[in-house]
Amino acid sequence: MNDTSSSNSKIPHIAVIGIGAMGGGMARALLDSNVSHRVDAYDRALPLVEAFYRDAQKLGKAATDGHSPTKLSQVVTKETSLVLVVLQNEAQCEQVCFGTGSPQANDENDNLRSLLSHGSCVIVSSTVTATWIRQACTKFREAGILCVDCPVSGGPVRARDGQLTLMASGDDDSLAVARPLLDALASQVHVIDGGAGMGSTVKMVHQLLAGVHVVVAAEALALAAKAGLDVVQVYEIVNGAAGASWMFRDRGERMIAAGDGDVPVNSQAQIFVKDLDIVHAEAKKLQSPIPIASAALQQFISAQSLGLSERDDSQVVKVYENVT
Amino acid sequence: MNDTSSSNSKIPHIAVIGIGAMGGGMARALLDSNVSHRVDAYDRALPLVEAFYRDAQKLGKAATDGHSPTKLSQVVTKETSLVLVVLQNEAQCEQVCFGTGSPQANDENDNLRSLLSHGSCVIVSSTVTATWIRQACTKFREAGILCVDCPVSGGPVRARDGQLTLMASGDDDSLAVARPLLDALASQVHVIDGGAGMGSTVKMVHQLLAGVHVVVAAEALALAAKAGLDVVQVYEIVNGAAGASWMFRDRGERMIAAGDGDVPVNSQAQIFVKDLDIVHAEAKKLQSPIPIASAALQQFISAQSLGLSERDDSQVVKVYENVT
Repeated sequence: MNDTSSSNSKIPHIAVIGIGAMGGGMARALLDSNVSHRVDAYDRALPLVEAFYRDAQKLGKAATDGHSPTKLSQVVTKETSLVLVVLQNEAQCEQVCFGTGSPQANDENDNLRSLLSHGSCVIVSSTVTATWIRQACTKFREAGILCVDCPVSGGPVRARDGQLTLMASGDDDSLAVARPLLDALASQVHVIDGGAGMGSTVKMVHQLLAGVHVVVAAEALALAAKAGLDVVQVYEIVNGAAGASWMFRDRGERMIAAGDGDVPVNSQAQIFVKDLDIVHAEAKKLQSPIPIASAALQQFISAQSLGLSERDDSQVVKVYENVT
Repeated sequence: MNDTSSSNSKIPHIAVIGIGAMGGGMARALLDSNVSHRVDAYDRALPLVEAFYRDAQKLGKAATDGHSPTKLSQVVTKETSLVLVVLQNEAQCEQVCFGTGSPQANDENDNLRSLLSHGSCVIVSSTVTATWIRQACTKFREAGILCVDCPVSGGPVRARDGQLTLMASGDDDSLAVARPLLDALASQVHVIDGGAGMGSTVKMVHQLLAGVHVVVAAEALALAAKAGLDVVQVYEIVNGAAGASWMFRDRGERMIAAGDGDVPVNSQAQIFVKDLDIVHAEAKKLQSPIPIASAALQQFISAQSLGLSERDDSQVVKVYENVT
């Protein structure tokens, strides 16, 4: 669903805020998709911005030849119709949306609420709490700005290919305005009933499973190694049997590949500290105990303590290797 | 691999000890397979034995018309070449193999070690500790009896269809003798190096994953329900995303189907208490900590405490429902 055939239906101006591994892939999928004539991007990391605009120029979709915006106001203006937010965490989202919530100094008007015009739409694809996105959408609505809660599943490769799974929620107007952009990013757009916050709630449930599956894959492979088994054979047997999981197959392969060394970073271990921390906070509010996810979170925190925060999340296996 | 074409290669006499959900399916797969002219069966539950011999008679493979053996010595004799043990737990295996280890009164000669002749082979497909099966195989070898450690993965349906996954280990002689029978039971026979005990060790690693995946599926679906999500939609989204597992798909469906009621029993909750307890005991011996599996075991123990021991293991979700 990467193309909208009628140029009349094109979104006039899209801005992507946060172009790291996921956001950068999504921004480029939008460049490829023809959903808009113009895609801008903003990130604090200037090399990412410069690389993005080089790609945009090649496709004739950069606003200004060679420019590399350093302020949000250079990217988001009254003409911006849709903003996709793909920042790392809630604090960054709060800062970009409302100019608050960050310890850093900030121009109080250099935020989405101040810069956007009535009828524009903010789509938040960062993993945030349902509590935060509900409040954010309320504040945007009060300023006449539409808002969609739209977390994603799928790594950087699927982001780049416009093949993510999206979990979108919000009011009907916001969803209708956002839809062409969502279709350009996703192989599957799941619309979740119940208004903003419910998409993030589904994502939370998903991350609970994903996070536990990564940790238990590490626990199982470490136990297999300690027991003197051929871990490659165990890996193959499990993948063909009832113990299989998507994460065991994907991360398990990188756990085995790492050996005493390391593997390329697909998704950083600290992302699961953040995501399982969201599960922890929201589940506590809901008074819904999560003993397994809670134990898994502790293993990712142990990984941080071992200096593995920015390593591939599969390297949580090193927590086990350190104690076996 | 359910057929051996040459009748010369047929195993003269097979006995299956324990014909519950799994053993009963395996015994019938052997009847169908033509791997032997004669398959006998033993179980303490006489109705299971009577039903088996009715099936065996129809195929002309019952030793004696209409008999229903009530003693092991009626089933296992000096002519028995291969014995497949599919009992519920280690204590039952110890009792049947050596006449010890059970609180019940027992004829000290009514056990496999006493009844079998030199060169016969015992295949243990119960889920037992690596420690126990190693000792058992040593004792059998001292009596001139071959022994294979051969746990299985796959439920009763796959057992009946001869489509199990087997994890076989033992000395080469034992494996060679057992192989035709194993092939008749399995779509995949994985031979695990390292001698008896290593098959059970792979099974332990597998059950660690399987058990945790069942519990975390319950944890996630209970959280989704508490958060007001449509659990069927969550189920579908997860199955198409990185949070997927074989157990989430299989058991998750039955968790949702149960609602306030119940579902047919595929595998009893108490089986995972036993299996994760084996993981716990063996991992402790290996000094390999298993915090996630340990937490999952506690949830199955809670299920027992709620009177769910003999219910389908998916009903561990009721532990969460009781506290959410």
